[in-house]
Amino acid sequence: MASTAAPQFLLFSSSESASSAAPPVHYKDVSFSLSSVRTGLRGLRYRSFNGVLSRAPKGRLHRTDGIMPPVGSLIAPDGGELVELLVPEHLRTHKLEEASSLPSISLTPIDMQWVHILSEGWASPLCGFMRQSEYLQSLHFNSLRMPDGSRVNMSVPIVLAVNEFHKASIKSYSSVSLRAPSGELIAILRNLEIYKHNKEERIARTWGSTVRGLPFVEEAVKNAGNWLIGGDLEVLQRIKYNDGLDHYRLSPAQLRKILEEKKADAVFAFQLRNPVHNGHALLMTDTRRRLVEMGYKKPILLLHPLGGYTKADDVPLKWRMKQHEKVLEEGVLDPESTVIGIFPSPMLYAGPTEVQWHAKARINAGANFYIVGRDPAGMRHPTEKRDLYDPDHGKLVLSMAPGLERLNILPFEVAAYDKSKGRMAFFDSARSEDFLFISGTKMRNLARLGEQPPEGFMCPGGWQVLADYYQSLTRNDSGNSTKQQREKAMSV
Amino acid sequence: MASTAAPQFLLFSSSESASSAAPPVHYKDVSFSLSSVRTGLRGLRYRSFNGVLSRAPKGRLHRTDGIMPPVGSLIAPDGGELVELLVPEHLRTHKLEEASSLPSISLTPIDMQWVHILSEGWASPLCGFMRQSEYLQSLHFNSLRMPDGSRVNMSVPIVLAVNEFHKASIKSYSSVSLRAPSGELIAILRNLEIYKHNKEERIARTWGSTVRGLPFVEEAVKNAGNWLIGGDLEVLQRIKYNDGLDHYRLSPAQLRKILEEKKADAVFAFQLRNPVHNGHALLMTDTRRRLVEMGYKKPILLLHPLGGYTKADDVPLKWRMKQHEKVLEEGVLDPESTVIGIFPSPMLYAGPTEVQWHAKARINAGANFYIVGRDPAGMRHPTEKRDLYDPDHGKLVLSMAPGLERLNILPFEVAAYDKSKGRMAFFDSARSEDFLFISGTKMRNLARLGEQPPEGFMCPGGWQVLADYYQSLTRNDSGNSTKQQREKAMSV
Repeated sequence: MASTAAPQFLLFSSSESASSAAPPVHYKDVSFSLSSVRTGLRGLRYRSFNGVLSRAPKGRLHRTDGIMPPVGSLIAPDGGELVELLVPEHLRTHKLEEASSLPSISLTPIDMQWVHILSEGWASPLCGFMRQSEYLQSLHFNSLRMPDGSRVNMSVPIVLAVNEFHKASIKSYSSVSLRAPSGELIAILRNLEIYKHNKEERIARTWGSTVRGLPFVEEAVKNAGNWLIGGDLEVLQRIKYNDGLDHYRLSPAQLRKILEEKKADAVFAFQLRNPVHNGHALLMTDTRRRLVEMGYKKPILLLHPLGGYTKADDVPLKWRMKQHEKVLEEGVLDPESTVIGIFPSPMLYAGPTEVQWHAKARINAGANFYIVGRDPAGMRHPTEKRDLYDPDHGKLVLSMAPGLERLNILPFEVAAYDKSKGRMAFFDSARSEDFLFISGTKMRNLARLGEQPPEGFMCPGGWQVLADYYQSLTRNDSGNSTKQQREKAMSV
Repeated sequence: MASTAAPQFLLFSSSESASSAAPPVHYKDVSFSLSSVRTGLRGLRYRSFNGVLSRAPKGRLHRTDGIMPPVGSLIAPDGGELVELLVPEHLRTHKLEEASSLPSISLTPIDMQWVHILSEGWASPLCGFMRQSEYLQSLHFNSLRMPDGSRVNMSVPIVLAVNEFHKASIKSYSSVSLRAPSGELIAILRNLEIYKHNKEERIARTWGSTVRGLPFVEEAVKNAGNWLIGGDLEVLQRIKYNDGLDHYRLSPAQLRKILEEKKADAVFAFQLRNPVHNGHALLMTDTRRRLVEMGYKKPILLLHPLGGYTKADDVPLKWRMKQHEKVLEEGVLDPESTVIGIFPSPMLYAGPTEVQWHAKARINAGANFYIVGRDPAGMRHPTEKRDLYDPDHGKLVLSMAPGLERLNILPFEVAAYDKSKGRMAFFDSARSEDFLFISGTKMRNLARLGEQPPEGFMCPGGWQVLADYYQSLTRNDSGNSTKQQREKAMSV
């Protein structure tokens, strides 16, 4: 894969002459480098060009249709139409009565996050918890086959687990109602299909490991029931969290409306679960510059922090949102060309498998460019001294994933603190000694100790939020308060 | 999925009216039942019809192109042309000289089996050991993207592992030579790519489990090197085993020639690694009857025992081939409409992932119908009291697999010994007490004890071969002789 931060898509050439030494291509007085990955297929190479080439004469390209949206309209949702599963207002009372007459299943906070995801169409064209046919396709193929034979990406199982007791209580029904942890009725699941929940296989195929200590697995899979129920979902009302952040929880439909009002002709999504430092900001502003350079009139950044379950040592959503607000207030990112929202998915920490889900969901929200960094959705191996996933696999897998051909992948250039300039800059291997890498761990430690990072690492207001958060955890009961934050991050 | 043994393919309907209660369809005075599996996709169901419907008016169908080969020609190999990697005779001396000048890598017997597979195009369009791009697509998507954006199935990694020492010795070369365990030069691997061999991830994603005791994993993965090398393969001569069975080792090109000489208009493949009992035979003859009923003039059975690595308690290839010879001699299968060959792949025991490989390789050999039974390529869980894979997943995954849409899947009806008729028959749940299930284990125990199975279970000559084999293993040194057979099964 090319490591340029310019827009990318996958182009195939079956001609032997297509070599990695091919000359740069010129378009609108801009020069575009190209790179290639050799493959074992006779005369076949994956080649990644700057996305703008999809506007070049058709003869020179394959598979570019739909990669660029027609100006003035957004990329189509997976399956063509955005799925929305909310019961219309005028039917609510009636459906609520029906729901209360059905056997009900109590959901966990993470189950609720999936109901939220499904109800707003982030997983379009999925319209309920997976039945076995989708579950198996997701585990084995990371994608679902559509009526016309095309594939939409679907790399993580979105499933509802129940135990033997629940299974027995619902087996004679074709529909059940779902209750929030609070006991409130929130949805009806219809045309049920019940099938085995083979946890070992689900974990192995989704995480590529069965090691102890995978956060989502420990939290939501190992202790789950041995049966899965799939069906068509009808959600009785919008999922709210009442944590003061619901106004940030924009649905794909709401985001599309805002992006169209802004007349966006390119939407680039940035998924994050960490505070925004100036390295991130540099990347986002640089991407915008390049898109403009390519002739886009209104590129819009979708700044899209993940809002569902995260592991205990991640910064809780409440504090991350405060930090992001400062970043916009202090003009590190341009509020005019930025839309900020919360992505309601739980975090799986499933690396190359999960990054496909993160990208696919953003297509449904209208994004046609996706920024991918080093080791997306990755973490350290729980028991070995290495990353759980190869840091390069995320962008490679994303670039080859079935159903994501329409999406322009923007590989992340590594940014680090440039001591010679006193600010964050793209790493230059020619003068590596000038650069200082500040890991998330290092950042957290500085904040925890109340120390300052090098000037220019993060805007002062944003850093203050981090410092406040870590000082709110006294070292003594950090175990405790870590638990509290985890519950906060989990609360719905 | 339908459990009928009639030819199947996957048909999609996006109309809500498409229900599992739809009436049978009639064509050429034959009635075809249909069944459906509900999915969570809006208004979408997977529906499986008898394959013959692909001849019905187009308006009523999707995705049927190419499922039926034009009469008189065979299904096209994956990628359109059959890959063959054997060096032409007139270049052999020259290439041999080059090979002897290159740094060389010594192969294991299983590596040799993969070289054999690659050299004859069973894995077309793959033309060498996988580079990282194919490796990742195989692990994550079970398929490879082609230049036109279509996908070919490729569910198991075909990779060559090397250790640190080898890596160091070749890192400055773009080509290496490969040596048989005997030391003989057998191939050149060009345009090398070296990448990490993350065994934990490979095992988890391929087997859906990381439990100890997975036969192929213990044999060929855990003890393999920490690096993989991909490249383009040039094989210096046909791989021979000199075990008296090489005449059975027909390449896809040789099989296609024979099938065309026989004017086959339907080729149905039967993959096996066990002796053929009359239940298998019943299924194969019944399938042939149905194909004729559907209007095929020359349906040919490809009886295709796997010839590579198998676990120690499987019957060794030599004895299985003797048994298959008897089955044909004694007319249990019709020699005239049957082609027997050895499939040189090693056995992975990877269930739903491996059955795709078994099916895909047979497309390359000219088969357009594939018979799939209960729990294909499965085994008992090494540490738990259950099957490693859900016995139904194999046929489900096969029916939804990317790149196998062209193949007609023939689900296996369970055959058992019908005590009321004194022969093997398709199981009839209405009179289950009449049926006796004779498992492979039970069969092996009978043979080991020199006892006779119920009459009609297997042809006498075939049974005698089994009895001879097991009596050749004395109980005392069975450990020993098991080891010997294992070596026999492994010897190349």
